Formats: sequence, C-alpha cells, structure tokens
Amino acid sequence: MHEFSGGVKKPYQNIIEVSASDPHRGGLRPLTFVRQVLAACLYPQLINSDKLPVDVRQRAQRLLGACAGGSVGSYTATAGIAEIVQSVSDFITRRDGGIPSHPENIYISPGSHWNIFTILVNSKSSPRSGVLTPVPGYSNAVMSLTGVGAVNVPYYLDKEQGWELKVEELHRALESAKGNCKPVALYIINPGNPTGQVQSRKSIQEVIRFVSEKRLFLLVDEVYQECVSGEKSDFVSYKKVLFEMGHPYSDTVELASFHSVSNGFFGECGLRGGYVELVNVDPTVMKYIYKLFSKDSCAPVLGQVALDLMTNPPQPEDPSYPLYHLIQKMKATLLCNLKRFMEVLNSLPGFHCPPFEGGTFAFPRLHLPPKAVHKAKEVGMQPDTFYCMRLLEEAGVFTSPGCDFHLKDGSHHIGVCIMISEEVMEELLRRLACFHIQFMKDFS
Amino acid sequence: MHEFSGGVKKPYQNIIEVSASDPHRGGLRPLTFVRQVLAACLYPQLINSDKLPVDVRQRAQRLLGACAGGSVGSYTATAGIAEIVQSVSDFITRRDGGIPSHPENIYISPGSHWNIFTILVNSKSSPRSGVLTPVPGYSNAVMSLTGVGAVNVPYYLDKEQGWELKVEELHRALESAKGNCKPVALYIINPGNPTGQVQSRKSIQEVIRFVSEKRLFLLVDEVYQECVSGEKSDFVSYKKVLFEMGHPYSDTVELASFHSVSNGFFGECGLRGGYVELVNVDPTVMKYIYKLFSKDSCAPVLGQVALDLMTNPPQPEDPSYPLYHLIQKMKATLLCNLKRFMEVLNSLPGFHCPPFEGGTFAFPRLHLPPKAVHKAKEVGMQPDTFYCMRLLEEAGVFTSPGCDFHLKDGSHHIGVCIMISEEVMEELLRRLACFHIQFMKDFS
Ligand SMILES: Cc1ncc(COP(=O)(O)O)c(C=O)c1O
Ligand SMILES: Cc1ncc(COP(=O)(O)O)c(C=O)c1O
Repeated sequence: MHEFSGGVKKPYQNIIEVSASDPHRGGLRPLTFVRQVLAACLYPQLINSDKLPVDVRQRAQRLLGACAGGSVGSYTATAGIAEIVQSVSDFITRRDGGIPSHPENIYISPGSHWNIFTILVNSKSSPRSGVLTPVPGYSNAVMSLTGVGAVNVPYYLDKEQGWELKVEELHRALESAKGNCKPVALYIINPGNPTGQVQSRKSIQEVIRFVSEKRLFLLVDEVYQECVSGEKSDFVSYKKVLFEMGHPYSDTVELASFHSVSNGFFGECGLRGGYVELVNVDPTVMKYIYKLFSKDSCAPVLGQVALDLMTNPPQPEDPSYPLYHLIQKMKATLLCNLKRFMEVLNSLPGFHCPPFEGGTFAFPRLHLPPKAVHKAKEVGMQPDTFYCMRLLEEAGVFTSPGCDFHLKDGSHHIGVCIMISEEVMEELLRRLACFHIQFMKDFS
Repeated sequence: MHEFSGGVKKPYQNIIEVSASDPHRGGLRPLTFVRQVLAACLYPQLINSDKLPVDVRQRAQRLLGACAGGSVGSYTATAGIAEIVQSVSDFITRRDGGIPSHPENIYISPGSHWNIFTILVNSKSSPRSGVLTPVPGYSNAVMSLTGVGAVNVPYYLDKEQGWELKVEELHRALESAKGNCKPVALYIINPGNPTGQVQSRKSIQEVIRFVSEKRLFLLVDEVYQECVSGEKSDFVSYKKVLFEMGHPYSDTVELASFHSVSNGFFGECGLRGGYVELVNVDPTVMKYIYKLFSKDSCAPVLGQVALDLMTNPPQPEDPSYPLYHLIQKMKATLLCNLKRFMEVLNSLPGFHCPPFEGGTFAFPRLHLPPKAVHKAKEVGMQPDTFYCMRLLEEAGVFTSPGCDFHLKDGSHHIGVCIMISEEVMEELLRRLACFHIQFMKDFS
C-alpha cells in the first residue's frame, strides 16, 4: 500500500494494490527466520551476538562459508553457489518422493521470470518460433515473448469447468499456428495464475503425451506449488508424473520447471531468487543454456541465500522451527481470505466467484449492466478496465481487469491477489462492496 | 579465496583468484555502514536497537518508507525505487559540476553488465548490427554481444602509448566493418579494464566528434570512475564533456553511461545493483528501452539500496562518516598494491608492467622464452594460457591470460585484479615471484 498524495480529496488514505502477486505490499510480514539469516549474512557481527537463535547463526555461518571470500558481496558461479544448488536439488528430490534431481540440471537466477523468459525465448532460436501460452495467464511472460519477436499462440482455459486445461484445446491451438509460425514449446502455469486451477495427475499425463507426440519443449511454471488451497486437489509436479509414466516419456520429453522465492508463502519478490530445473534436455541445448546464463554474471547472492532457506527450512529440532512454521498461519490466512472473498463477492449483484484450488489470485466474473458497458465504449475503454479504473479512483483499490488477459468471449473479470493480510483483505472487501453497490446503482 | 580440496598435495592451502574484479574474494572487507543499513532494511528490529549508529537507523527507516508495504521483499517500479533513482540523479549532477541529470533517463538494474548487454544488443535491432569494442576490453560484454548474433568490430588500444584510445584506429575499425555489418554503436571502457588507461578530456572530445559524424550510439562503461590512481589524470565523465562541447553535440549525440556497486571501492558484486543514464536518446528508442527493462520485473531491492548508499554517502556531520571514509583507506590500499605490484613485477626477468592510471586491473606484459612458447604449442595452448595454467597449478594463483582478450600482435600478458587486501597481494607476489623464477629457469 502506498500513501496517497494528490490535490483532490479522496475518501481513502492509501491505495490497496492487489493487481500483482506481491504479499508484503499487501501487508503480509516476511518470515523472521529468513530475514534474520539474511541480515546475519550481510552483517556477520550478528553471528556472534546472542540476540539471534543459534540455528540462524549457524546457517548464516555455513552459507557465508560457501561464498567466495566469506562475503555475499562476491560473484558466484554462473549456475549459483554449489551448496545452494544442492539444497534445491535435495528439495526437489524430497518433493517428488525420491525421483532423483541432478544439481547439474539446475540454474539459479534473478527470479523465475528471468528464467522463464530466457528459456522460453531462446530454447530454439529459429525465427518465428511459436510458444503456446494459456489464456488467461501470466501476462508478463507473454509480453516478454512477443517483445523479442517470438509468436504467442494462445490456448484457452475452460472457464465453464473451473479453468481446466483441455488437451483438445491444445490441439486446436497447435493447428491454428499453421502457416503462421513453428510452435516449439508449450508454456503451462500450474497451479494457475490468475485462474487458480490445479491440474490433476491425469490432466498432466495427457499434456505430457501431447507434447511428446508433437515434440514440444514443456515449460512449466510451478511457482505456486505450495499454494494449494482446494480440498480435493494436491500439487503433483510435472517431473514426478513424467518419471512415473516411464519410457518413452520419462527419458525423452524435454521439461523445464520454474520456481522462486517470490511467490507462495515466502513472498520475497524484491530479493530476486528463482531456479529452473531442466530434464531430458539435449546436451547441445544445455550448453547453449549455460551460455545464456553466463551472460548475466550471477544471480543476486541474497536471493540465492533465500532460496536455500526456502528449500531447506528449519527442522522440528531447530530453535527457529516454531517461528518458521508461522508459514502454516499464512496458509490459514490464504484460506480465510479466500473464504471471505468468495462470501462477499458472491453476495454482491453481478459478481460470480467460482471456487478455486490454488495460486494466490481470485478471478471473479463480473456481469456489468448494459449502461456501464455503453459508458465504457463511450470513453474508449474495455468495460472491465472501466470498472477497475473507477474502483481505483473512487475506492483506492488497484486490481487488474480481465481484458488484460485477452479472453476471447468478451466476458468480464477482475484479478485480485488474495495473498495479503487479513486486515487488508477486510478493508479491501469493505471498499469494494461499497463501491460496487454504488456503481451498479449508477448504471442500472 | 577458496579452500583447496583435492587428492594431490599442493604447496599452497588456498587459491588466490584475481582473474576478475571481485574485491571481497580478494580479501577486502565490505564497508560497515553499507552492511549495517542493508541488515537493518532486512531485519527492521535492528532499527530500534541502539547497537547501530543513528544515521544507519534513519537511513534504513527512510529507505523502507520508499518500499511498497515497507518491505525490501516487494517488487519495485521498473526503473527502480523513485527515491533511489533521485539519489542517483543527484549524484550524477554533483559529479558533473551541476550539469543536470534527469531521473526519467535513469534505469536501475541487476548490475551494470545486465544494462550494458541489454542496451548494446537492442539499441538498434536490425540484424547484423555491429558494435565497436575495445581490445583488450571487458570480455563478458563481447561474449554477450556475439552470443545474440550482433557483430563485434574490434578496435585496438595502443599498447605502446599506455593503451591509449586513438581516433584513427576507430576510423580504421569502422572501415573494416564495411560489407560485413552495419556498425550502430561504439562501446568504450573508461577508466579501462584490463588496461587501466584514463581518457583525457581532449581524447573524449575526439571520440564524441567521431560518433557524432558517424552517427553511432555511444555506450560508455564508467564503472571504474572512482578508481583513478594515476597522478596526472582525473576522471571526467563523457556526459560532462559532451555538455561542455555545446551544440550540436550536446543535444544530438546519443549516450548511455553505466555504473554499478560492484566495481571500485564499494565492491558489492554479489548484490547486483547498477544503473544506466541515457542522454539524447530518441523518444521511440526510450520507449523501447522501457519495454526491455519491464521484461525483468525489477532489480534486486538490496542492490538498489546499495546504490542509494553509494550515490548518497554519509556526510561529515553523520556518525557513520568516519567509518564510511575508510573508503579512503581502500584508495590507499589500491595505490599501495599498484606500487608493490609494479616494483615486484618489474624486478622479475621477462615481465614489464607499465605505469597505469585507473581501474582495478594490472595487465603486465610477459616476454616468454622461446622454449616455453614451443612447449605451449606442443600441448595445444596459447603461450600465456600455458603460463597462467602452470601458475594456477603450481602456485594456486588464478589470473587471466592476455590471449583471452584477442590481442592481434601476439604479445603475451596476464591480467590481475589488484583491488585486493594488502595481505593477499603480498602472498600473491610471493607465490608469483617464486613460480616465475622457476618457470624461467625451466624454460631457459
Ligand atoms: C505465474 C507466475 N510466474 C512467474 C512469476 C514471476 O515471479 P518472479 O518474481 O520469480 O520472477 C509470477 C509473479 O507473479 C507469476 O504469477
Ligand atoms: C568494465 C566492466 N564493466 C562491467 C562489469 C560488470 O559489473 P557488474 O557486476 O556491475 O555487472 C565489469 C566487471 O568486472 C567490468 O570490469
């Protein structure tokens, strides 16, 4: 939230920004353990002070030992600090129930977006390469993609079925690219953003068979893997499903999986730390990817340290365990926010908020009165942009309009990050409800 | 320095790595003031403790106030936190004696390399664009450039004249590109790396006239601007000279100037913070550059904070002033290292280390005995690579061979970062001298 400063008097004192997934901006607090270790790495005098728990001090000491010259101010290896790459690899192996992860297939980078963008765009370098991307999806990835001349081939998630990914639709999208570009990769977000769907094992298997048949590189954005809020669904990684499917899939399908410290309960967007794990990637492409990564000298060391803490958290016997496991409280906050958001939105005329399974976004549908649609056209705006603009101006709530995601059926939506503090959520709902009722009255 | 671990017993316990500019790796200590502010930003409880000086606490408080949600864990605006961009802009204005710098022309990014690479490669996007780059120069920039298909057009610094940049040579290089590519930009490093030359005002004026006539975009890497160690020379920025030249230069020559927290006395390579200032850049190109920067969500917030501290350091009345001004001691260390290095190298047979004016590298020339050159050929190596390999294996000193810089005349050199602690320098010189005398004996 930013303090509001301007000449005109507004009925609110600050702006609530929920257009992107940025938990601290939304009033959530960082994890104390994480911040203590980072502070001690930066200012090693803290390691000798008894103000910090012993496991914090030990961890900082150990991580500094892995830094050249014992300082987070030194450059690291291209793929990241070897000890931290190992932590990431162990984390993946544990997550996937023992399916091995090899450190040499992991690259640490400044956030997952950097990774996604770099690999998306460069994985095959022939001109007019195409990438299948979800609608609605993470619009920055699409922007990055088209910004460098690759062709974005949209596939549409099924709104009527909780934004499910349908393989028939992937076939249709692939067909649609004919004569326009050569699709080389499929980009998937699971759990979805902004849609919140979580793919079942069966759905993942279907996608894997599809990319195997069509020889597409599979790029899976799994940054919301910890954020599964639905009761029916569990997160299963693409890598796990791929390996369980066995030959020929498990040893041929080229897969890149992304994760980062920005998303989920960690919420450290500003540190810029993420990783990609590459599976079955051709050795010449691996070499090329190594070169791509070498172009940026190294990922921010403190982002790397945060990645170590995320993938190798305190254990029950450690003094910081109870504090770290406030992460459970965040999970409860997310569920509680979700429940409250649905309750309130579904009680407002014109809003429909279907249940969802994961991620940190809500993406309710908005049925706008014809007069509002008309007025929006008059001022040259998409109807949901018009709604979001008014919501920002009149109530100081900054959301993202559905049209930014290029839905094809003209339905209207707003995207709201719900990974925020409960207080901010209550204030948001209060303002949104007030504004909405007045808006609907004005345009009835 | 890394602890050495291996099966074979070696006469040294650790490796001294001086192949790149990485001060903390070389045993230099970070600035306490910087680390205290960063730690307090990460762990705001420290702001309330009386363990830290009051100006540290105030600065951390103020910077956190500029972060969304009061956390360094939130994303920032694309160009960086507005308050920090302002600090950078004020710093440039002061540096250039009042010539105005406009915040809207400044972008903060993850290190200067990211900036250089992004703008180098994309400033004009037609295929087979060429960029004139110095030899010897910063090889990562050249690698990045050719890695994405741009053509590297080398220009050679004048070895016999202290690696001076000669405009005749720029003309020759430009001619040489004919029929091969369309040169669009000139990349300059001043003070030089690894050459240490510092351009005079007159030399800068000549370069500006040249790019103006040839309509080249001027990219100046000024990351070593604080590191001027020669007695005759002072750093003058390209921007200052450009503005003092007046019309038509001051309002037409397109200039990008780079700086970062990695280099010079700050030495915070691992934080990844740098900036570029753009001057006279066409509004449509500015728009395009904005899009390029938007692709990466934002620069690491702690790198941004470090940039604030570098550009807006404690003032004489602040409690941290004396401690911060240990930076003066670093300057003395650099001068002392330089003196010692030259003394020792020039006393060794076969080495010639000319005086140099700036930067953090020494680049002595090495006259190798014919037998060593012959042996190198036998094992399929460049002679200076052969020397550097042996130096690493036998004495644990990791330097960069001159051939990595693609000198055209077949002369041999080694590149050594001298921005290291005095103790490490003494150990390095001891090992290098021992090794060298034996090497020369072996191949005499
Ligand atoms: C689906 C998805 N992928 C990637 C990212 C980018 O995250 P990072 O900060 O790791 O670059 C986001 C951020 O919101 C996201 O929603
Ligand atoms: C001339 C030059 N430019 C740029 C850089 C890169 O610095 P940064 O860490 O800011 O990317 C270096 C690093 O050594 C350098 O020597």
